[in-house]
Amino acid sequence: MNIKLGTNAYGKNAVNLSKIIRHADHHEFRQVSVNVALEGDFDTAHTLGDNAKILPTDTQKNTVYVLAKEHFTNTIEEFGLHLANHFISNNPQVSKARIEILEHTWQRMAFDGAAHTHSFTGGSTEKRRTLITQTAAGAQVSSGLQDLLLLKTTDSGFENYIKDQYTVLKETSDRILATKCEATWEYTTTDLDFEATYHKIRTSLLHTFAHHKSLSVQQTLYAIGEQILLANDVVKEVSLIMPNKHHIPFNLEQFGMENKNEVFMATDEPFGYITGTVVRE
Amino acid sequence: MNIKLGTNAYGKNAVNLSKIIRHADHHEFRQVSVNVALEGDFDTAHTLGDNAKILPTDTQKNTVYVLAKEHFTNTIEEFGLHLANHFISNNPQVSKARIEILEHTWQRMAFDGAAHTHSFTGGSTEKRRTLITQTAAGAQVSSGLQDLLLLKTTDSGFENYIKDQYTVLKETSDRILATKCEATWEYTTTDLDFEATYHKIRTSLLHTFAHHKSLSVQQTLYAIGEQILLANDVVKEVSLIMPNKHHIPFNLEQFGMENKNEVFMATDEPFGYITGTVVRE
Amino acid sequence: MNIKLGTNAYGKNAVNLSKIIRHADHHEFRQVSVNVALEGDFDTAHTLGDNAKILPTDTQKNTVYVLAKEHFTNTIEEFGLHLANHFISNNPQVSKARIEILEHTWQRMAFDGAAHTHSFTGGSTEKRRTLITQTAAGAQVSSGLQDLLLLKTTDSGFENYIKDQYTVLKETSDRILATKCEATWEYTTTDLDFEATYHKIRTSLLHTFAHHKSLSVQQTLYAIGEQILLANDVVKEVSLIMPNKHHIPFNLEQFGMENKNEVFMATDEPFGYITGTVVRE
Amino acid sequence: MNIKLGTNAYGKNAVNLSKIIRHADHHEFRQVSVNVALEGDFDTAHTLGDNAKILPTDTQKNTVYVLAKEHFTNTIEEFGLHLANHFISNNPQVSKARIEILEHTWQRMAFDGAAHTHSFTGGSTEKRRTLITQTAAGAQVSSGLQDLLLLKTTDSGFENYIKDQYTVLKETSDRILATKCEATWEYTTTDLDFEATYHKIRTSLLHTFAHHKSLSVQQTLYAIGEQILLANDVVKEVSLIMPNKHHIPFNLEQFGMENKNEVFMATDEPFGYITGTVVRE
Repeated sequence: MNIKLGTNAYGKNAVNLSKIIRHADHHEFRQVSVNVALEGDFDTAHTLGDNAKILPTDTQKNTVYVLAKEHFTNTIEEFGLHLANHFISNNPQVSKARIEILEHTWQRMAFDGAAHTHSFTGGSTEKRRTLITQTAAGAQVSSGLQDLLLLKTTDSGFENYIKDQYTVLKETSDRILATKCEATWEYTTTDLDFEATYHKIRTSLLHTFAHHKSLSVQQTLYAIGEQILLANDVVKEVSLIMPNKHHIPFNLEQFGMENKNEVFMATDEPFGYITGTVVRE
Repeated sequence: MNIKLGTNAYGKNAVNLSKIIRHADHHEFRQVSVNVALEGDFDTAHTLGDNAKILPTDTQKNTVYVLAKEHFTNTIEEFGLHLANHFISNNPQVSKARIEILEHTWQRMAFDGAAHTHSFTGGSTEKRRTLITQTAAGAQVSSGLQDLLLLKTTDSGFENYIKDQYTVLKETSDRILATKCEATWEYTTTDLDFEATYHKIRTSLLHTFAHHKSLSVQQTLYAIGEQILLANDVVKEVSLIMPNKHHIPFNLEQFGMENKNEVFMATDEPFGYITGTVVRE
Repeated sequence: MNIKLGTNAYGKNAVNLSKIIRHADHHEFRQVSVNVALEGDFDTAHTLGDNAKILPTDTQKNTVYVLAKEHFTNTIEEFGLHLANHFISNNPQVSKARIEILEHTWQRMAFDGAAHTHSFTGGSTEKRRTLITQTAAGAQVSSGLQDLLLLKTTDSGFENYIKDQYTVLKETSDRILATKCEATWEYTTTDLDFEATYHKIRTSLLHTFAHHKSLSVQQTLYAIGEQILLANDVVKEVSLIMPNKHHIPFNLEQFGMENKNEVFMATDEPFGYITGTVVRE
Repeated sequence: MNIKLGTNAYGKNAVNLSKIIRHADHHEFRQVSVNVALEGDFDTAHTLGDNAKILPTDTQKNTVYVLAKEHFTNTIEEFGLHLANHFISNNPQVSKARIEILEHTWQRMAFDGAAHTHSFTGGSTEKRRTLITQTAAGAQVSSGLQDLLLLKTTDSGFENYIKDQYTVLKETSDRILATKCEATWEYTTTDLDFEATYHKIRTSLLHTFAHHKSLSVQQTLYAIGEQILLANDVVKEVSLIMPNKHHIPFNLEQFGMENKNEVFMATDEPFGYITGTVVRE
C-alpha cells in the first residue's frame, strides 16, 4: 500500500499591519491581521525537500506590507481580493490562495462633540473579518465578524425540552441570553459595496437579536440567519456560532431571600455551543 | 534563628457577578469581577492548621452575591465600600479588608436613534476598577481603569536620547504613539460623587493624551498625571502604566519605495514599559 | 426563493472533569475536558422554537460526570466511545454524536527514585486528545495530540526557494526548527489497544522529527506522517499542523561581532503555518 | 499645592531570547524572556521632554542580545547580575537597575535511553525566574518559580472554620488540594551556587507539599516556607502564592449514586487566593 500527500497548504499567519491614511485635515487609522495560505503543486517540497516551487512565507509577509501601501485604502475585502489575485497571478504553481483578514476596531476620540483629527481609543472586542478564496475559476468572498458580545436581559426562555434521568435543569420563561457571536456569510459576487453591505448585515443581526422573543438559542440563531438572507440578495448562506454564555441565578433562597432574576453568577465553562448554517433552497 | 509568618492575606478572587437592575421601562445590566482579600490574626491557621479564625473563601463568595442584591445599585466604589465594611465589622480577627472590583462595559443597543430597553453589546476591552482598603482607621478608595487602548498617529516624537555602542534606533519627530493604559488614582475621601468624578478624570486623561505634543512616553505620562491632579482636588496621587505598543515603519525602501509613515508592523513583544506616579508636594 | 436550515449542531463544551482512581496502595489522577456535540432532527427547534427534541446541554454535562464514575477508568478513547454510544442509543432524534476529549498531563512526583502515592505536578503544555464520531453506521475514532513543542538546534535548513521582487530572506543550511505540533490520526477500527498505539505513534513522531535532516517544514511534516503510516496499519491517515515558531538570528554584526548561530530572537507573530495530510493510496 | 514626579521606572519588557550553547558532541538550548527596568534621575524627561538621560528601551533590548553571546552561559541569576551591572556601571543617571528573567523549560529528547544531541520537547508550564536589583550599594538576588501545578489527591482537609449566616461549605477531612504555585525567595548573598541551590529549594517545596498532612492551604504554605528556610541558610525569606484550584465533588447523589471522592468538577473561577511570606526573626 502506497503513501502520498493529501490536502495541504502553507503560508504566513498573523501579519500584523497598521496603516495611517493621511487626509488633508485628519488621519484615518486601520489595524489588521492577515493570514495567507497557498495550495498548489507542492508535492516535491514534501516528498523530496525540493523548494523550487515554494514562495517563502517571509516573502508572503513582505508582499502584504508592500501591497498595503497602494491597495489597502478601503475595505478589507478589497485589500484581500488584491492580495489573493497577486499570489495567483504571479505563482503558476499555486492553485488556490486564501487570504483571511481580521480588522481591529479603533474609535476616533471626540471632545465636546468635535471629532479629533488623529487620536483614537481601542474599540470593542468585536472584530470584522473576511476570507477571500481565489482559484483560476475566480474569487469567492466570505465576510463576517467575531467576538461580538450580545446580551439581553429578558425576552428569552428555555422550556419544554427532553427530561431524562440526568436532567435537573429548571425550565424558565425568563432568563438572560448572552453569547459571543461569530457570523460568516458568503457573498454571491465580488462586485458589491462591501462597506455598506457589511453594516446592513450587522444591523440585521443586532436588530433580530434584540427584538426576537427567544425560545432557545437555536431559534434565535435561525431567526438571525433567516433575516440576513431575506434582506440581502447578495448573501448565499450564513453560518453562526453562538456559544451560550451562561448567567446562572445565584441561589439566594438558601439565605432566606428571593432572587427575582436580579443576581447572577457569570460562568465561562462549561458552556453550551450552538452552531448552524442557514441556506437558500 | 527562629522562623515566623510575615505579611499574608487570603480571600476569594474572580467572583464573577452580573446584575439586572429592573426599572419600569428598561433594564440596566452590570457585570463585575470581585476579589476579596483579608489580612489579620491568622498566625495559628498557618502554624497549627487551626481554622477557628478563618472565614472560608466560599463564604466570602456567597457574601458578595448576597450583598449585591441590595447594595450593588450604583457605582463599584459604593458596592466595594459596603463589602469592605461588612467584612471588617463582622470579623474581629480581620485587621484589613481589601475589595477589588473590575467592571466590564456593556453598551445599550440603539436602533434608529432609539435606545433598546433590554439589549446590549459588549463594550471595549477597557475596564473600570476600584480598590477599597478598610481598616479600623477607616476606608481608602483608589479607582482607575485598565486595558484602555490609546493611539495617536502624529504629534509624537522621540529624539535627543543617549546613544551608546548598542544604539541603532533612529530619531524621529513623527511616530505613532500607542499604549494600553492602566491608571490608578487615590482619593482623599470616600464621600464624593464617584460616578461623575470617574468620568471627569477619564476625560482629562483622554484629552491630555490627544492634545499633548509628545516628546516621549514619559512626558505624556507625566502630563496626564499632572492634569488629573490639577483638575481634581479629591485626587491625592495618580499612577500610570503606559507600555509602548510599538508600530514600526515597515522598510519599503528595500523594495524601491518610500514609506511616508504609512505602513507599519504592529508588534506585541518586546515592548517598552513606562511607569510613573505623579504626586502632590 | 426559500430559506432553510443547513448543517447544525449543539452541545456542551469544556466539561472539565477530574477523577481519582483509587488503588490499594496509590491513587491515579486524571483530568480531561469534554466537548459534546449532537447533530440530528432539530429543524423545528430552529424554526419554531419547539424544544421537544432538545436534550439540554446541562443534561449532557451531567451525563458526562455521571458516566465518568463507572466508565472513565482507562483511555479517553474508551470513555469517549461510551459517551457517544450513550447519546446515540438514548436519543433517536440524534443522527450523529461527536465527543471530543482533551487530556491534561499530570506527572507523579518521585523522591529519591520512589514514586509518591498521591502527589503530582502538572505536566507539559502537550495534551492528548481524541474525537469520537458515532452514527447509526458505527463509531469512528480519531486521536492525536496538540501543543507539543518540538525544537531541534541543527539538521534543518531552507534553501533553493523562489526569489521574487519581495524576497529578502537569506538561504540557510543550518537553522533552528521549532514548532507547536498538532497531530490527528484516524483509526481504521475501534477495536485496538488505544494506550499502546498512542504511545507508539507519539514516539514515531518524536523520533522522525529528531532524526530527519530537514530541508523544509513541509518535508519534515511529510516524513512524520509517512513514518506513522508505515509503522501503524491501524492508522488510515495523519493530519499535521506545524506552525513555524521562528528563532531569528540576532544581528550581532552591526555591533562588530559574529553570530555563529548562537543568539536568537524568539518571535510569536507573524509565523509560518504549514499543514498537510498524509494518506494511503 | 505643587505637583511633582514620584516613583517611576522604564525599560524593555519581554525581550525573548534563545541561545544554542554548542558543545563538541551535543547542543544545549536555552530560552528566556528578559525584562529590564531602570530607575534614576529622569525628572526632566517627564517634566520637560528632555531625553538627554534616557537610554532608549531599544538599546536596552540590543544590550540583552549582545551580552547574551558571552555572558549567558550558565544560570539566569549570573546572566542577570551581569546585565544589571552593565546598566548601573555605564549609566550614572541610573540609581537602580532591575533585571527579571523568566526561563522556559525544554527537555532533551531521549530514545531507548539515549539522550539526543540536539532535539528537545517543550517542558512543563512551570518557569524558573529571577529578579536582580542593583544599586550603588550592591546587588540583591531573588529567585523562584511560577506556574508550577501541584496536586495531591488526599492528605488534605478543611474543617473547624467560622460559620456565619452565609456559610454553606461542608467540612471535609479528605479533599483534593491543587494549586498553581508561585514562589519567590530572597538570597542573603550573590556569591553562591545558584543552580544547585535552586534545585535543592524546589525539591524542598515539592517534598513538603507531598508529605504534609494539610489542614488548610495556609498551613501547607507556611510549612513549605518554613522548610525552605530551615534547610537553606542562604535564603532570607520566602513568599508563596498558592491559589486554590478547586476540584469540587460532583453531586452524584441527585442521581442515586454515591460519589466516593472520585468524580470532580475542575473550576477556574472563582478561586481561593492564599499568599504569605515566611521570614526569619
